[in-house]
Parts: sequence; structure tokens; C-alpha cells
Amino acid sequence: MKLADLYNYLRPEIQKIEEELERSVLTTHPVLEDASLHLLKAGGKRIRPVVVLLAGNYGTYDIERIKHIAVSLELIHMASLVHDDVIDDAELRRGQKTIKAQWDNRVAMYSGDYLFAKAIEKATFFEKPEIHKVISNTMIEMCIGEVEQIRDQYNWDQNLRTYLRRIRRKTAILIAVSCELGAMASDASKADQRRLHAYGYNLGMSYQIIDDVLDFVGTEKELGKPAGSDLLQGNITLPVLYAMEKDSSMREKLREIFVNEDPEEGQMREVLQEIRESGGMEFSKDMSQRYLKKAFEALEGLPDISATESLQSIAKYIGKRDH
Amino acid sequence: MKLADLYNYLRPEIQKIEEELERSVLTTHPVLEDASLHLLKAGGKRIRPVVVLLAGNYGTYDIERIKHIAVSLELIHMASLVHDDVIDDAELRRGQKTIKAQWDNRVAMYSGDYLFAKAIEKATFFEKPEIHKVISNTMIEMCIGEVEQIRDQYNWDQNLRTYLRRIRRKTAILIAVSCELGAMASDASKADQRRLHAYGYNLGMSYQIIDDVLDFVGTEKELGKPAGSDLLQGNITLPVLYAMEKDSSMREKLREIFVNEDPEEGQMREVLQEIRESGGMEFSKDMSQRYLKKAFEALEGLPDISATESLQSIAKYIGKRDH
Repeated sequence: MKLADLYNYLRPEIQKIEEELERSVLTTHPVLEDASLHLLKAGGKRIRPVVVLLAGNYGTYDIERIKHIAVSLELIHMASLVHDDVIDDAELRRGQKTIKAQWDNRVAMYSGDYLFAKAIEKATFFEKPEIHKVISNTMIEMCIGEVEQIRDQYNWDQNLRTYLRRIRRKTAILIAVSCELGAMASDASKADQRRLHAYGYNLGMSYQIIDDVLDFVGTEKELGKPAGSDLLQGNITLPVLYAMEKDSSMREKLREIFVNEDPEEGQMREVLQEIRESGGMEFSKDMSQRYLKKAFEALEGLPDISATESLQSIAKYIGKRDH
Repeated sequence: MKLADLYNYLRPEIQKIEEELERSVLTTHPVLEDASLHLLKAGGKRIRPVVVLLAGNYGTYDIERIKHIAVSLELIHMASLVHDDVIDDAELRRGQKTIKAQWDNRVAMYSGDYLFAKAIEKATFFEKPEIHKVISNTMIEMCIGEVEQIRDQYNWDQNLRTYLRRIRRKTAILIAVSCELGAMASDASKADQRRLHAYGYNLGMSYQIIDDVLDFVGTEKELGKPAGSDLLQGNITLPVLYAMEKDSSMREKLREIFVNEDPEEGQMREVLQEIRESGGMEFSKDMSQRYLKKAFEALEGLPDISATESLQSIAKYIGKRDH
């Protein structure tokens, strides 16, 4: 089944989740409601709800129950996006903030808090304490990931391990947990819960690595931001790590260019080209494929039902993603 | 029993909660740990844990269970303090932020998120879904309160209702819920849970109103910040509302003074004096006393045990508080 067919097939359930998401963010408070609805309408692939739904097929599938997990996890994802946007470096460089911009930042922070709280509230539909434990633990890991990302900005001495740990917390855990909780909420077997967790984890790692590669190869139009913007913000991803590892003069060059945190445009263009030609892109794609292979392997022990085929389709799509 | 005696009497239990709080914020991540421990060591009256402990006496008291509620609610309180400090107006006026200061702000935001997540994790000790529902609902209300406070800044047309709704969400709800959950976690009767909630709510309202009065009468040394700093930050509290209500020229004067959000020092001193002499202080103290009276009344249906006497002592202390 192709990905488009999968979304088509799941459309009625996804629609239900969209409605539930919208209902969740409705409040008596106009500012929070506007901020949340704006984010909701922006859409997204809803990958987390989709895998929750699919994982629900390994136990007793009940959309009226499982939708609460799907919504809860998507709200956590949305909250983390909102907090990611607070005081980003790009805005910083424009110089002094206006009161208005700061106001917006505080509102963004509290909107994120609000979405987190709503996510927890949604999860209280379930009386299983292990579900709450998994969710709170995921939030804890994600916070640590965010702080690590800030700490590691412009740190040219970090290594592959730092990077992998960071993307695990930033992306992979929430997808892993979406798969796991979809299964847990449907009373699937512990073994299947573990398989689905492993699938989601490896899928998430593969996805994030490709995302980091695409930041170098895409055009500004495809990416919705200039190419190399991760690096420009001091976020050091796999292709950069590879380029620095291969040729240590690259490390010194980057350190030099970013000494004022605002590199000259010509220098930036040059260094981006060198990274593209370093072999770092191929190395990263290869590592992404290796995670993807593990995602496929994790599916092997699962029963031969259509959900398994759908999860394979998602993995295949991620393997071919080029924008 | 005097308040000092009460704290003395509860010392072993409070000590247990301090230890549990410290254990909760220990992490493998140094930045988050430092930020959280710093906040912990700053102390505070731990009023929320204290009322949780006292409320636990109306059911089956078990410190090893109830401490998890006490810690969870104190972590929520700490998280809200951390987020309150993010991008505060005072810092704003100093002009452009340094990269370092912004970094700290993002770290502060994620430290708050982390404390929220830890609070939820702590609460998962309990398998009662109603406890989780009350906690997530409290967090939602507190977020709405924060956004309302931002929206209402420098809004000279707000009224008493806006103010009361704001302090309810900002302060009273969390104290009400601390009382209620202490009782709920100990399987106290529903009626006692309701009484304790009402006590906590009225206590919190009374407390916050007095806090807002003290901001005008205290010296800089007593307050740890200049007198009138609420007003300086555009937070319009009860004495100001009263002064504007009584003499509408005060409303216009404030609008005029704050037109650039940074009032001239002489004008500010003058307006503060006028507010002090408006009768707004007496009006506010009176309203605080009325909430306090309701707090005492809420205790009336409770059994005549020493915890009830202790709750009375806390209310008496708040009634006499002058710094």
C-alpha cells in the first residue's frame, strides 16, 4: 500500500482525531485558543496519531478509546514545537526585541504549557497508571533533549554519540512511545508493545537523520527556510560532524567563522559546499538506512495483518523521502 | 498552636518532603539539575506541602503515600515560578539582551517544563485517575491565569472581576487543590475534600490580596524589590483598581504616566502615594479578611482534630501577616 492510499484508508479515523484535537484546544480563553488553533490548522503529517492508530490493531481496536492517546501525543508534539519557537536565535540577531515580541514569546511559552497540560488531561481518560508513567517519562526525556540541544549549540567538539542521544530525545522517543502506547491502550501483548516501540524508535532516528541531511540539499523554497539553517543556528548535525571528523581543518574553520555567531554570507556558502562534498551526506543517508533496516526488522515478529503492511509502507516512504 | 510551633511539629515530615523534592530533580543532566536545585535551596514556606500533610489527617494518614502528592504540587509551584521569571519586564527595560541572557531564558523555560513533567511523574504513584484529572486541570487553569495576567498588563480598564479571576488562577487554585488532594489521597470523605478545597481556595485568595497590598506598603528591604513594583510592571492589583474606581482622574493619570511603559520616577512616587491614601489599602485588607472568614467557616464541618487547629493557625497567621 502506498502512503497516500494509507492516509486515504485512515481518513475517517484521522478526521475523528482532528476533531478531537480541535475540541481539546477550545477554551474560554481567546489568546490561547487562537494560538493553538493556528498551530492545528497548520496541519502536519500527523505521523504520531497515525502510528498510534495502526498500533491499536495489535490488541482490541477501539477508536473511541485510542483517539485519546493519539490526541495526547500529538498535543505533546505541538507543545514542543511551540516551545521550540520561543526566542529562537534567528530572532535574536535582529537586535533588541520590542515589548510586543517579548509578549508574544511569553504567550508562546504559556501556550506550550497549556498544550502540555491538555495532553496530560487527555491521557487521564485511561486508568492504567503505566500509560501515565510512559507519558511523563517521555516529557522528561524531551525536556532534557531540548536543554542538551541548547547546550550543544556552537559546540564544535561534540561527537556522534552526543548527536544520536540528542535526536533520540528530540524525535525518536515520541514516535516510539506513540507506537508503544497505541498497543498498550489496546491491550496488545507486552512482546508486541516492545516490537512496536523498537519500530518507532528506529523509524524516528532514520527520519531525523534524513531531515538533517535535507537541510543541506533542499532549496529555500522546498525547505521553507534557507539551506544550511541548522548550521547557521549552531545546531551541529551528522553531515557536519562527519566533515569535521574527516578533516579537522573544517572544525577550525567553523570555529573561526562562527566566532561572532553571525558568519559572513560568502564564508557560509563556501563551508556549506564543502560539507556537501565531504561525503557526509552519503554517510548520513547510509546511517539513516541502517536505522530503517532495524525498523523493518522490528516488525518481523508481528502478526501478518494489514497494520503491519501499513507500518512497512511508512518506513518505505521515509526511506525514499527527498524533501 | 503558633505557626512556628506547627512547623516545628511537622519538621520530620517536611524534612522527608525536602529530601523527596531533591531526589525528584536529580537527573543525569547537569544544567537542569543545577537550575532546579538552585530553586529548591532557595526554600520558601512550603505552604502547599504543609496543607497536603494536614489534609492527609482527615483520612488514613500515610506519609509514604501522601509525600508524593506534596512533592508533585510543590514541583508545579516551582515550575510556575520558573516560568514567571522567564523574560520578565524588568529585564526587558535594560535594553537589548545578550545571547547569554537569552540562553538562560530558554534554559529557564525548559527547566520549568522539566519540573512540570516531574510533577506529573510523581503523581503517577497514585492509581486514582481523579487525582490525575485534578492535577492536569489545575495546570490548565494556571496557564490560562498566566496568559490573562499578560493580557491584562497595562490595561487600565479592567475591573474587580478580572482581578479576582486572575488571582484565583494564579494562587488560590493550587492551594485549594493541595488541600483537596491531600484528603483525596488519604481516602477522606468527599464532604471533607470539599470543605478542605473551600478552605484552601479562600485562604489563597486572602493571601494573594494581602501580598498585593504589601507591595505598596513594604520597604525595598522587606520586599526584596522596590515598593510598587507590581504597578511598575503593569500588574494592576486591588488597591490600584480601588483608587481608579473612586477617582477616575487616577485612571487617566496612570494611562498618561505609562504611555511609554517606563514612567518617570517622580511621577511614580507621587502616584504610589496617592494610591496609598485612596482608601484602597483598607478596602483590600477588608476584602482579604472576608475571604479569611470564609476559610475559617469552611473548617467548621471538619472533625475536631489537631489538624483542624493547625489549619486555623495558618489562617490566623495569614490574617496578621504584615511583611
